[in-house]
Amino acid sequence: MTSSPPEELFPSEDLTLDAFLGGRVRAFQPRRGYRAAMDPVLLAAAVPARPGQELLELGCGAGVASLCLASRVPGLSLTGVERQPAYADLARRNAAENGAPLTVVCADLQMLPSDLRDRSFDHVLANPPYYPAAAGTPARDAGREAALREETPLKLWTSCALRRLRPRGWLTMIQAADRLSDLLVALDGAGSVTVLPIAPRLGRAAGRVIVQVRKQGRSPLRLLAPLVLHRGSRHEGDGEAHSPAAQAILREGAPLDLQVRAETRP
Amino acid sequence: MTSSPPEELFPSEDLTLDAFLGGRVRAFQPRRGYRAAMDPVLLAAAVPARPGQELLELGCGAGVASLCLASRVPGLSLTGVERQPAYADLARRNAAENGAPLTVVCADLQMLPSDLRDRSFDHVLANPPYYPAAAGTPARDAGREAALREETPLKLWTSCALRRLRPRGWLTMIQAADRLSDLLVALDGAGSVTVLPIAPRLGRAAGRVIVQVRKQGRSPLRLLAPLVLHRGSRHEGDGEAHSPAAQAILREGAPLDLQVRAETRP
Repeated sequence: MTSSPPEELFPSEDLTLDAFLGGRVRAFQPRRGYRAAMDPVLLAAAVPARPGQELLELGCGAGVASLCLASRVPGLSLTGVERQPAYADLARRNAAENGAPLTVVCADLQMLPSDLRDRSFDHVLANPPYYPAAAGTPARDAGREAALREETPLKLWTSCALRRLRPRGWLTMIQAADRLSDLLVALDGAGSVTVLPIAPRLGRAAGRVIVQVRKQGRSPLRLLAPLVLHRGSRHEGDGEAHSPAAQAILREGAPLDLQVRAETRP
Repeated sequence: MTSSPPEELFPSEDLTLDAFLGGRVRAFQPRRGYRAAMDPVLLAAAVPARPGQELLELGCGAGVASLCLASRVPGLSLTGVERQPAYADLARRNAAENGAPLTVVCADLQMLPSDLRDRSFDHVLANPPYYPAAAGTPARDAGREAALREETPLKLWTSCALRRLRPRGWLTMIQAADRLSDLLVALDGAGSVTVLPIAPRLGRAAGRVIVQVRKQGRSPLRLLAPLVLHRGSRHEGDGEAHSPAAQAILREGAPLDLQVRAETRP
């Protein structure tokens, strides 16, 4: 008798093995469904983790952000929470594939298991769904839909994250730029906020924002100069060049240190 | 018997006559106290007023923003509200000096006279105090202190402004960039928000933000590319050059059209 995988997991033929950070990280992703591209890589680059620290990723999907972090910073202890069993399974498989110190918990962030609720972390990271509930057309793929569409309001992500953070710990999130107000409202009073706009090109409006909060910090908000992803002023096809800064982060595993950028007086 | 000016007004010898917009606007300002520099000029440039519209400026000080608007757009009807009698008097004097259609009402924005409360406007603009109540060292000059320090919470500025706006009218504010979160929290749910960071130089964090809200609009928030004020990468003394964009706005009276910038695909 052979056992077939439970229906909710991805069959191998529906997966692709994709490279991140110039091949430092390899991760299986569903051919259809939510596929990580730049955003989890940028998120991971922005987390100011030091060796030996404990990190929690909320909504880790296939685990790409945590795997990128594990690749950049040695000796981390990483915990990923993912609500969809198929993605949680994939994240575990990807952790093994990369030899990464990532433990994956399949749970809704509103109902974390008690052993997680008893823990606190140096860093929490998250790439929550970008589209508010009940806006736009649903994605055709249910997994993609769940990854993109906000079923859990942003406020619940931030309050869960802040509860799991140590005092003076760092919360780092990436979001669609048009959710900046929702995110800042959700984070009101949480600590010192730094906002990094991420723009596709020089002179263009931001498409994403990274928002970083130092829990219980009292520094004024800082709105940094944008990170610009591509060279040139227009889209020039798939082979177009990243900016040097984006290239270093996406292909060479460089950190994206918001606090250093905030202090820069070029 | 000679009458001396009432104590609360500025004696002429305490005033300077300053030029804005390359001399298109000339305004008396107190030698000591709150002196307009770039911010009201940038604010005025960002208000998308059309000839014949009705505008309200909350906290108009000596009137520089409204005077710059009157200089750029013909046929406006402008009303300025200013709590400090000496500044309200100065704004009236400056309106006469420039032949500008600006009526000044000396009132606290929490207690507007009933004829103002009965009116609604196409645009409201404001340059509220930048420092929250009870933060930092008070300014030595009481007028400067009142202009800089928030005695009226930001939320009261925005709710007063939104009440006086017509549906689909525009609220345009300039603020210290570190108040971005406070401002977005105060404006939560008010309409379509556009945020323009204003940076002293390329690559530097924003020092100011212009936040524009279309009342009852339902477009997603837009975080624009920064307006950069100065050329070069470091401060090179008082004679240093503005960026071409800043030069056009500050010296030649060009508009700073946030909605056009939002659509730009350079």
